[in-house]
Amino acid sequence: MTEPPPLSHLDAEGNARMVDVSAKPVTRREAIARARVIFPEGVLARILDEGVPKGSVTGVARIAGIAAAKRTAELIPLTHLLPLSEVRVDFRVGDPSTLEVTCGARAEARTGVEMEALVGAAVAALTVYDMCKAMARGIRVTEIALLEKTGGSGGPWRAGA
Amino acid sequence: MTEPPPLSHLDAEGNARMVDVSAKPVTRREAIARARVIFPEGVLARILDEGVPKGSVTGVARIAGIAAAKRTAELIPLTHLLPLSEVRVDFRVGDPSTLEVTCGARAEARTGVEMEALVGAAVAALTVYDMCKAMARGIRVTEIALLEKTGGSGGPWRAGA
Amino acid sequence: MTEPPPLSHLDAEGNARMVDVSAKPVTRREAIARARVIFPEGVLARILDEGVPKGSVTGVARIAGIAAAKRTAELIPLTHLLPLSEVRVDFRVGDPSTLEVTCGARAEARTGVEMEALVGAAVAALTVYDMCKAMARGIRVTEIALLEKTGGSGGPWRAGA
Amino acid sequence: MTEPPPLSHLDAEGNARMVDVSAKPVTRREAIARARVIFPEGVLARILDEGVPKGSVTGVARIAGIAAAKRTAELIPLTHLLPLSEVRVDFRVGDPSTLEVTCGARAEARTGVEMEALVGAAVAALTVYDMCKAMARGIRVTEIALLEKTGGSGGPWRAGA
Amino acid sequence: MTEPPPLSHLDAEGNARMVDVSAKPVTRREAIARARVIFPEGVLARILDEGVPKGSVTGVARIAGIAAAKRTAELIPLTHLLPLSEVRVDFRVGDPSTLEVTCGARAEARTGVEMEALVGAAVAALTVYDMCKAMARGIRVTEIALLEKTGGSGGPWRAGA
Amino acid sequence: MTEPPPLSHLDAEGNARMVDVSAKPVTRREAIARARVIFPEGVLARILDEGVPKGSVTGVARIAGIAAAKRTAELIPLTHLLPLSEVRVDFRVGDPSTLEVTCGARAEARTGVEMEALVGAAVAALTVYDMCKAMARGIRVTEIALLEKTGGSGGPWRAGA
Repeated sequence: MTEPPPLSHLDAEGNARMVDVSAKPVTRREAIARARVIFPEGVLARILDEGVPKGSVTGVARIAGIAAAKRTAELIPLTHLLPLSEVRVDFRVGDPSTLEVTCGARAEARTGVEMEALVGAAVAALTVYDMCKAMARGIRVTEIALLEKTGGSGGPWRAGA
Repeated sequence: MTEPPPLSHLDAEGNARMVDVSAKPVTRREAIARARVIFPEGVLARILDEGVPKGSVTGVARIAGIAAAKRTAELIPLTHLLPLSEVRVDFRVGDPSTLEVTCGARAEARTGVEMEALVGAAVAALTVYDMCKAMARGIRVTEIALLEKTGGSGGPWRAGA
Repeated sequence: MTEPPPLSHLDAEGNARMVDVSAKPVTRREAIARARVIFPEGVLARILDEGVPKGSVTGVARIAGIAAAKRTAELIPLTHLLPLSEVRVDFRVGDPSTLEVTCGARAEARTGVEMEALVGAAVAALTVYDMCKAMARGIRVTEIALLEKTGGSGGPWRAGA
Repeated sequence: MTEPPPLSHLDAEGNARMVDVSAKPVTRREAIARARVIFPEGVLARILDEGVPKGSVTGVARIAGIAAAKRTAELIPLTHLLPLSEVRVDFRVGDPSTLEVTCGARAEARTGVEMEALVGAAVAALTVYDMCKAMARGIRVTEIALLEKTGGSGGPWRAGA
Repeated sequence: MTEPPPLSHLDAEGNARMVDVSAKPVTRREAIARARVIFPEGVLARILDEGVPKGSVTGVARIAGIAAAKRTAELIPLTHLLPLSEVRVDFRVGDPSTLEVTCGARAEARTGVEMEALVGAAVAALTVYDMCKAMARGIRVTEIALLEKTGGSGGPWRAGA
Repeated sequence: MTEPPPLSHLDAEGNARMVDVSAKPVTRREAIARARVIFPEGVLARILDEGVPKGSVTGVARIAGIAAAKRTAELIPLTHLLPLSEVRVDFRVGDPSTLEVTCGARAEARTGVEMEALVGAAVAALTVYDMCKAMARGIRVTEIALLEKTGGSGGPWRAGA
């Protein structure tokens, strides 16, 4: 039976550390993450159908997600600052109560952009929450997860594959 | 049948705006939010039981959550900068695969601290994810939601009440 | 003949300082500033008329301006951090080559929000520039100026009045 | 008759995006931008001639401009974070009412530093405004424009050439 | 024999927390801190005497110290964001090898500005170090300490009194 | 007798500038800096011996130091933004009144990481101060200095060597 790999962000005494990535090669790194905003019944339909200009809410949330992805190294303490070459944030209505957010990030870097994609998706989703919270209590942000990742030494990875 | 209240962050043409709070009174505002980190089976137990000094992961995540709550106005575009008088981030093991994060925020302010609590909980949870991701793929952050809120003109609110 | 008032941001030896505002009363402060984006002939019409969804450019610029106004104290070294109660950024087509940006800011504070309004207008205008620069060289941002201001000890002020 | 190039910061549906620069080569990128601070008649002469130690105002504004240029990716939403290898901010008295600011930026990067130079010039000019505004109402910041640019696939560009 | 007061930034289990200051009154808080930059023999004299325009180094360091004091809440994790009403940074040559930096901070607030003054002094001193390090190895920043503090429930405090 | 090298952060007229590093090669840069926190007699022993869970104070300070090192380019005006590949912050009890902090930084870059190491050590030390200041007045942060540095054109350097 195999041991799980150790927690790379802790040294032998349990002290936090940034992982040293200086010996890793610069390669193209990509990651896509997802978050879901779940609305109380009927609320999302009202936002989409009545009176709210298309894109007003998601337009703001997209910018918030892109900006947050670029600032991941300030938010998640042990991450490395990565000069992202692209960030995309997209929205899609899933079932009638769900707005699905995806964030794709890309960089030529020594370490992956997984956290950048997750932070971008999470902050975009929280911005949707913020803009809609006066209309309905009980909105939730859920299922924040990595969907796929390429470019690291472990090879490509895809959720559920 | 009542109309839902309008999206306060959009004006009549759908343009984004910060809500003008200058006429609101300064009152004590409090909010508690929650996020859940869901681990693949067996992983959380290994992190808790074997070799990882207690608090190593959550200690880092707590600081990340507090710092992020204080910077909410930089992350969520239409929020107001609020001088928080307290932020707390706590962790609790729920079922064997779940680490539950709560973030409580407080301010004497003209508007609520709901987004501050949510951002604190979300960033703390994402920091746990970051620190554990080398040990196991497939971790998710889920059920980010407001648990309770006091101090606004709408009176106290509690999830599920 | 009257002396001009001294430069309040310099002490007697010419050293920079933040002006001490602790003795001033907290009052409602408002300011509106303007910036103009001047396009080469025909370019603005194409952006407005052909194919660019209404609000795509200005929607991004509005968020950038609001966010920048909130961060004025980080950008302009001797300004005080002010908890803004409202920021508005609006756009209007002036003559066929001009997009006019206005930014209004408001706070209950010990000092004015003039710089916040100016920074918001300037960064919104520069964001329009950034989004349109691939379409045409030679765009300029011009006439960044205060339009009006209320709430200080000097009484209300209006440009050209 | 040629079509103008599309707005690269919008996708086909008008949604904002960071342009993917990952396939572009790293080359030396340089840009110089200008901003003008226009003073009411006589004011600039008094600042320069009487009592204000040389460099007191421009020394502060220079640091503000350099710092802002380094933070362009936080201010202009769709720009890429670029590790600048140099930023210069210079000041020159033009006609008796004009202080001219130039900002030069340089990087080894996959995309240009045009916005960095513009942001540096604009924030330096606004800092001059901030430091002088107690002395005279009606100062304006104007003619923010790119003067020259080298290093991109489009070849060198110079204003008015 | 009296117990030392507990570490207010830790709860009973040793978890970090921001101290809840919401019940404290808003009062005028002031603090002055000091840092010393120690130069290898002869170096400071050369900087002061030969060719370096007066204020060139300290002018930059002053702005850096003021800016850092305003951002203390982003740097020191458990501090509260305080809207400072004044920050001053001053420099004085002590013995021939010592440049003494003082930073005074002031706010109308629920908690003290001690950390703001210390951060301002430390960052101003480190900026002097940065600007002079090409001229001489072995510069040190030392004796960062609070000199005095007023406005808290503990009454005024002065070092060495 | 040799002239000291000039202050590279000033041009011939004494104006501040970022040094142009674009012509320098990218090499591995490392630096280690130290800061000391000096406690009044008996205080450090009480913190270490009685009741404070091991690592509670230093755990927070470590994260603060790492985060600050990553943000050096925002704090020290004329430094270049460097994508750090590693930051480490360590603590060691020296004599009974001294907690010694070291910060090591590493990057593949065109210029050195000396300031990043110094900022990391200084902010970690100030965070220790902040967390312990309620327990004892008179704590000082002292002896902030570079211990060693490798990777620049000047060859490796070590304090006291």
